[in-house]
Amino acid sequence: MSIHSNRRTRSILDNPRAERVRRVRALLRRSVRQKEGRFLAEGPQAVREAVAWCPQSIIDVYVDPHGRERHKDIVDAALAAGVFVHDVTAEVLAVMADTESPQGVLAVVEKVDVPLEKILEEGSDRPRMLVMLAAVRDPGNAGTVLRGADAMGADAVLVGSSSVDLYNPKVVRSTVGSLFHLPVVTGVDVQSTLMRLREEAGVVAYAADGEGDTPITEADLTRSHVWVMGNEAWGLTEEMSAACDQVVSIPLHRAESLNLAMAATICMFASSQARG
Amino acid sequence: MSIHSNRRTRSILDNPRAERVRRVRALLRRSVRQKEGRFLAEGPQAVREAVAWCPQSIIDVYVDPHGRERHKDIVDAALAAGVFVHDVTAEVLAVMADTESPQGVLAVVEKVDVPLEKILEEGSDRPRMLVMLAAVRDPGNAGTVLRGADAMGADAVLVGSSSVDLYNPKVVRSTVGSLFHLPVVTGVDVQSTLMRLREEAGVVAYAADGEGDTPITEADLTRSHVWVMGNEAWGLTEEMSAACDQVVSIPLHRAESLNLAMAATICMFASSQARG
Repeated sequence: MSIHSNRRTRSILDNPRAERVRRVRALLRRSVRQKEGRFLAEGPQAVREAVAWCPQSIIDVYVDPHGRERHKDIVDAALAAGVFVHDVTAEVLAVMADTESPQGVLAVVEKVDVPLEKILEEGSDRPRMLVMLAAVRDPGNAGTVLRGADAMGADAVLVGSSSVDLYNPKVVRSTVGSLFHLPVVTGVDVQSTLMRLREEAGVVAYAADGEGDTPITEADLTRSHVWVMGNEAWGLTEEMSAACDQVVSIPLHRAESLNLAMAATICMFASSQARG
Repeated sequence: MSIHSNRRTRSILDNPRAERVRRVRALLRRSVRQKEGRFLAEGPQAVREAVAWCPQSIIDVYVDPHGRERHKDIVDAALAAGVFVHDVTAEVLAVMADTESPQGVLAVVEKVDVPLEKILEEGSDRPRMLVMLAAVRDPGNAGTVLRGADAMGADAVLVGSSSVDLYNPKVVRSTVGSLFHLPVVTGVDVQSTLMRLREEAGVVAYAADGEGDTPITEADLTRSHVWVMGNEAWGLTEEMSAACDQVVSIPLHRAESLNLAMAATICMFASSQARG
């Protein structure tokens, strides 16, 4: 590895072809993320939240000179939490990252998802609100729903096995740190999971669908429930809808005029209102 | 112009350097759009809605062979409405468009905005809901809010002079046709417009702001009101907030965890619920 140092400056990794750089960059591939159980958090928002909420999951933080200066709060918090902070050149950071400009900071983090059992067993003193991404394929949508779930006080997000990989850098970026706040379960089988939620935890399933026959104002959102969000293009399959207790729609002035993230935001807001 | 034809096929424009192609492409520039009063609607969703709702505003529709076959409904509706439909090669269409793939169809349309006076003078038998993009800079956000406004039954959208150009191809695309459904006013001065709305039309202004002191559940959404959305990064300026009657917030589990489009969606949904 080409790390040079002198007495006056910190050592800085400046070789974009170094083995370490190559290994970080490899995490852009899903297969590598799966094998290593690690992923990339890019940019100050994501890294700040990772340091604040999951410092024990962080393997390394990388900063370029601009990032070290601009995001001193992150560097200080990371060091205080015992996280390794490595200096790299802007060129090296750009090679490591998926984004053209990760704004000077990036972290390699161990996967943060929890087993389904944890959600099922969790004692709850009040009704719960969960969100399931049954077949959400667009990284930006998945991340935005996660962000909204965090904002609206959801208790957990479950990601179906045919949805986009939650650790895709674009998803991680769109969550702007929410991934590190709220419990997530990945790779779930939609139908059997809905059944287990109902039987083992008393959680009813509401499919969000423009064609649903229950208007959202009539759905009982005061009891424990999970919002099931389908695919951007084709919504929920018949099997998925059938696995839900009710198919709920948002009354619209014009049909098909809400995208998935907006529909999910409204569903979760309605739940958050009902839960007080 | 290099238009060739024979007895068996329609004439097709196949020269990407033709004057007509150059003039369509020039509409990607804001200055040209302003000078000519025209803009581009790209892709089937936008063109379909333009043909359905504003055929009189369409100058020309362009289709490539794939588009003519795939979007026969649009071509037929355009022809039925007396709109010119021109055949071009896929290469020519790609040169005309902002998107890499406009999915075979594109239209040149005359601007569709209406003067502020039209909104002020409009007789209303029921309380109105308006939305103002005071300083929204991101094209995707602006388009998504417009789309949501359409879904939630807003009566009009007003775009401040420091917001992104409504006719930016990315904005048009994100509205997925809503631009052609609901009245829009562009280039408004935020403060004087809010004053005129209040004085001349009895419309009160609610600033949507995470720091607002009125929770959305306590805002009176049964009277005529306008939601004022600020900038993605810095929200509303003090002057803008001061020009509003109330500064309204959405109760959040975690601060700063909703993006502008999600916050706007929730505000408009709450209004739509209150209006019944």
